[in-house]
Amino acid sequence: MKKVCLPAIEAWPNQYRGYEIRIEVPEFTSVCPKTGLPDFGTVTVRYEPNRSCVELKSFKYYILAYRNLGVFYENAVNRILDDVVRAARPVWAEVTGAFTARGGMRSTITARHPRRKTRP
Amino acid sequence: MKKVCLPAIEAWPNQYRGYEIRIEVPEFTSVCPKTGLPDFGTVTVRYEPNRSCVELKSFKYYILAYRNLGVFYENAVNRILDDVVRAARPVWAEVTGAFTARGGMRSTITARHPRRKTRP
Amino acid sequence: MKKVCLPAIEAWPNQYRGYEIRIEVPEFTSVCPKTGLPDFGTVTVRYEPNRSCVELKSFKYYILAYRNLGVFYENAVNRILDDVVRAARPVWAEVTGAFTARGGMRSTITARHPRRKTRP
Amino acid sequence: MKKVCLPAIEAWPNQYRGYEIRIEVPEFTSVCPKTGLPDFGTVTVRYEPNRSCVELKSFKYYILAYRNLGVFYENAVNRILDDVVRAARPVWAEVTGAFTARGGMRSTITARHPRRKTRP
Amino acid sequence: MKKVCLPAIEAWPNQYRGYEIRIEVPEFTSVCPKTGLPDFGTVTVRYEPNRSCVELKSFKYYILAYRNLGVFYENAVNRILDDVVRAARPVWAEVTGAFTARGGMRSTITARHPRRKTRP
Amino acid sequence: MKKVCLPAIEAWPNQYRGYEIRIEVPEFTSVCPKTGLPDFGTVTVRYEPNRSCVELKSFKYYILAYRNLGVFYENAVNRILDDVVRAARPVWAEVTGAFTARGGMRSTITARHPRRKTRP
Amino acid sequence: MKKVCLPAIEAWPNQYRGYEIRIEVPEFTSVCPKTGLPDFGTVTVRYEPNRSCVELKSFKYYILAYRNLGVFYENAVNRILDDVVRAARPVWAEVTGAFTARGGMRSTITARHPRRKTRP
Amino acid sequence: MKKVCLPAIEAWPNQYRGYEIRIEVPEFTSVCPKTGLPDFGTVTVRYEPNRSCVELKSFKYYILAYRNLGVFYENAVNRILDDVVRAARPVWAEVTGAFTARGGMRSTITARHPRRKTRP
Amino acid sequence: MKKVCLPAIEAWPNQYRGYEIRIEVPEFTSVCPKTGLPDFGTVTVRYEPNRSCVELKSFKYYILAYRNLGVFYENAVNRILDDVVRAARPVWAEVTGAFTARGGMRSTITARHPRRKTRP
Amino acid sequence: MKKVCLPAIEAWPNQYRGYEIRIEVPEFTSVCPKTGLPDFGTVTVRYEPNRSCVELKSFKYYILAYRNLGVFYENAVNRILDDVVRAARPVWAEVTGAFTARGGMRSTITARHPRRKTRP
Repeated sequence: MKKVCLPAIEAWPNQYRGYEIRIEVPEFTSVCPKTGLPDFGTVTVRYEPNRSCVELKSFKYYILAYRNLGVFYENAVNRILDDVVRAARPVWAEVTGAFTARGGMRSTITARHPRRKTRP
Repeated sequence: MKKVCLPAIEAWPNQYRGYEIRIEVPEFTSVCPKTGLPDFGTVTVRYEPNRSCVELKSFKYYILAYRNLGVFYENAVNRILDDVVRAARPVWAEVTGAFTARGGMRSTITARHPRRKTRP
Repeated sequence: MKKVCLPAIEAWPNQYRGYEIRIEVPEFTSVCPKTGLPDFGTVTVRYEPNRSCVELKSFKYYILAYRNLGVFYENAVNRILDDVVRAARPVWAEVTGAFTARGGMRSTITARHPRRKTRP
Repeated sequence: MKKVCLPAIEAWPNQYRGYEIRIEVPEFTSVCPKTGLPDFGTVTVRYEPNRSCVELKSFKYYILAYRNLGVFYENAVNRILDDVVRAARPVWAEVTGAFTARGGMRSTITARHPRRKTRP
Repeated sequence: MKKVCLPAIEAWPNQYRGYEIRIEVPEFTSVCPKTGLPDFGTVTVRYEPNRSCVELKSFKYYILAYRNLGVFYENAVNRILDDVVRAARPVWAEVTGAFTARGGMRSTITARHPRRKTRP
Repeated sequence: MKKVCLPAIEAWPNQYRGYEIRIEVPEFTSVCPKTGLPDFGTVTVRYEPNRSCVELKSFKYYILAYRNLGVFYENAVNRILDDVVRAARPVWAEVTGAFTARGGMRSTITARHPRRKTRP
Repeated sequence: MKKVCLPAIEAWPNQYRGYEIRIEVPEFTSVCPKTGLPDFGTVTVRYEPNRSCVELKSFKYYILAYRNLGVFYENAVNRILDDVVRAARPVWAEVTGAFTARGGMRSTITARHPRRKTRP
Repeated sequence: MKKVCLPAIEAWPNQYRGYEIRIEVPEFTSVCPKTGLPDFGTVTVRYEPNRSCVELKSFKYYILAYRNLGVFYENAVNRILDDVVRAARPVWAEVTGAFTARGGMRSTITARHPRRKTRP
Repeated sequence: MKKVCLPAIEAWPNQYRGYEIRIEVPEFTSVCPKTGLPDFGTVTVRYEPNRSCVELKSFKYYILAYRNLGVFYENAVNRILDDVVRAARPVWAEVTGAFTARGGMRSTITARHPRRKTRP
Repeated sequence: MKKVCLPAIEAWPNQYRGYEIRIEVPEFTSVCPKTGLPDFGTVTVRYEPNRSCVELKSFKYYILAYRNLGVFYENAVNRILDDVVRAARPVWAEVTGAFTARGGMRSTITARHPRRKTRP
């Protein structure tokens, strides 16, 4: 995935400890780089804030920028994780993209920070 | 969040050990400090009582006081946790606020006492 | 809660080991001691039998006896746990009472035997 | 429970390792030994096969044999577990019987092999 | 199960670490080798990619090849697992086949790589 | 059904025309006159008000009075209809009682005013 | 269908007019005359009583008598309708049998009294 | 209901014929005039536009104005209908308010324009 | 659609009047004539029998014959209707095919006999 | 709405009479002309074909063309109806657009051809 420039995710100073934030975006859409046809899905970000929280309005415009972007499922989810981590430096973060059926198959991608081997 | 004065949460003496109480408030509403528009959500408090239990009627009036209060999601949930902990000194407590969609995004905040780093 | 006399829960000898029994009573009703108005809920008992099992018919009449009894949620659930434990001496037991909304709030109480500190 | 003779559960040689099989029978029915009235429920068998797998057709006829058999919930579930274990010698097995409401109460019995003390 | 030749599952190079991919195929169908009648089910593959990811289009044609293949449930699920593992060499993988009711019974098979004894 | 005295349903003057009111009481309970065991169900009243509307608080106490009353399903529903009609003189009214399963059978009774032959 | 003798459906005198009774039996079971295997389904009776109502306990025993009776779906539903009509002489009646899947197909039969041509 | 002044519902010129518009507001809240406690519900407006359509943003502010208004269910629904009709002069309109449970009872009010006697 | 030869739908003599039969086949599958890829859907047949009923086993084999047949949605549904009408000469019949999503669009086709202009 | 040029909806000759076609597009998206933000919804077309049917692939590309088009809900639905009617000349047609919540309100627009006054 070529690093296309996307709007910045902004952050604001967090004043509490030990809590979790979950942002669910049921209206995610991007474009399949192979077919040029749109993809649809629900993107969910969960994280424990450290010194900063993701600013919701900037995150909304960040997500909107995928609308006409050609990007594979795996790259979209992994890039959103990387961009959230870079913006807010959370204790941990997890991004899930659950996409609608294409060709009779539904894909769901889940990426976690810090990146570690997982278990089923 | 400026410490606005809210009605006190009262407590009554607990006589059992090792059990959990869950209070679900599906009709929580407050006001967004930025836009002045109302927010809606479900607030859920879970805790293990130590020497005291949260008195339900006072908790209802405490929650009602958010109706015309300008408060961000994160602050509302974290303050409810702090106020429940101060009132009832539970063994542990957890407050979740699951808010309805705004701008196509749904936020859910979960805070736990005692405050500790969590894992995804 | 004054120890009102309730019908005895009977038991029959268990002949198997290492299994779990779950009894769900979706039609539990009692009376609020403050307002005199009826409360409704689902009471669920789970336990691993040791030498005895709870006899279902006597348990039904035991539960029916709450119908016109003034009792708080927490006391009802904790007393049912104590009475089940006394009757059947299970390896472990758990009683949950999930009550319908009152004043816009739903309460769920969960008590476990043996009584130990829990974690969220 | 007197050991009534039931049709044999047959087995066939397993050629894979480390996988789980789940058989759900939503149309289980037997007869209550006390009232003579029919009981209905869903019986679910889960197991990890060792050298043999449960043959489905013989298992179907085994289950059908309960139709006019007078048997208590606890005995039915525990006997099915014992008969599955005897027939297929699995690494582990679990049988659950979730029965429809009788007298306003729903019973669910879960038994596991090897038989060990459990925790809530 | 005789090793019938199936279309190859292709793979493409993975560039991220520590994430999980889930592919759900709700339209799986094959043929029962005993009766010649069709079977239907949902096949779900979950895995953590190592150096390669399963290419979705080739996987679709691989799954389509089962349409007129006589194969038992257990063999289908275990072979899909083996073929996914051979194609993509994942850190771990899990394949589940949840089949529709036949003779009043529903079968679900779950196989995991690496193959290890499991627990209920 | 002997005409047991029940609390009066009160009414207040209606100021609009051509609209419908629906009151749903999911927590109706009475006692079976044969067995003495409690019955549970959802009672729903729909009507078009003429000059009066049913006063909700008095209706709540009217319904509560069935709690320890021995009454058959058909009589309860038909009497509630008659009492609502007498209290509020609506253009039309319909009362439905949907009762929980007894002996594996669920009864639903629907009565309408004015009383006319109906069609399936 | 040979007229097998079934327990009588009893009736009791109706004292109201213009209302409807619905009895739902989710635990109906009979035997397929071809295969000898059990069938399962939900039988629903709706009718407007004239001078008599179906007595529920006798109806329960009437339905239980189908348990070991070999009968096709169409015959079961039409006979239940005829027997209800003979017992209670309702203004109208409708019997529906919704049977669980056999061979991947679900059958639902609906018969109405008085018997008239219908429309889709 | 004293005619409190509410923000105006605006309208824009309609250019199509014979179609229906449905606006669902799941976050309606007002205040009970008796108890001062908040009420919650879903308000749904359906109408066939004539020369004008309801302008959504002004309708949102109109609905928001109920937030701290003391008003009974029946009056809220009937007034919304009257105000929609006055603003947009539709061919027909229907307003439904489905309110959450209070005292164990749920109220739903449905008003239609033009105001005519209805049937169950 | 070229008239491919399909297995005959058989019929048996009907002995009742004025009732409806519904057969639901949730596992219908055929092949898209354009792409060669499989289509999936639920086919539902409803009809009022005249002198004959559709024989279920022959109908099952009739439906199975579509498995490897290239046929458009509209043609499949209309041909099933014509074949059912030819086999059983019903008073009326209706066939619905509800197909799973292809290219993000779901098609449902409903055909009725006798063929008449319909209304929305 | 300025008549933006959209891809043509093609048609193919219909060979059956008296049946209905339903096309559901759960992934419709366009752009709000006021805010520039995306709208999402499900568009459903139902019609009875006369001499022609809507060709699905061209309809898919027609719908895709709304993705970056600024258009109000009412205009989108009414234009889709007009374009479907122009392309296929159906006996009747109905287009519904059910849009996701914006500002706490959900809009659903339903337009019918031929255009006639409707009733609630």
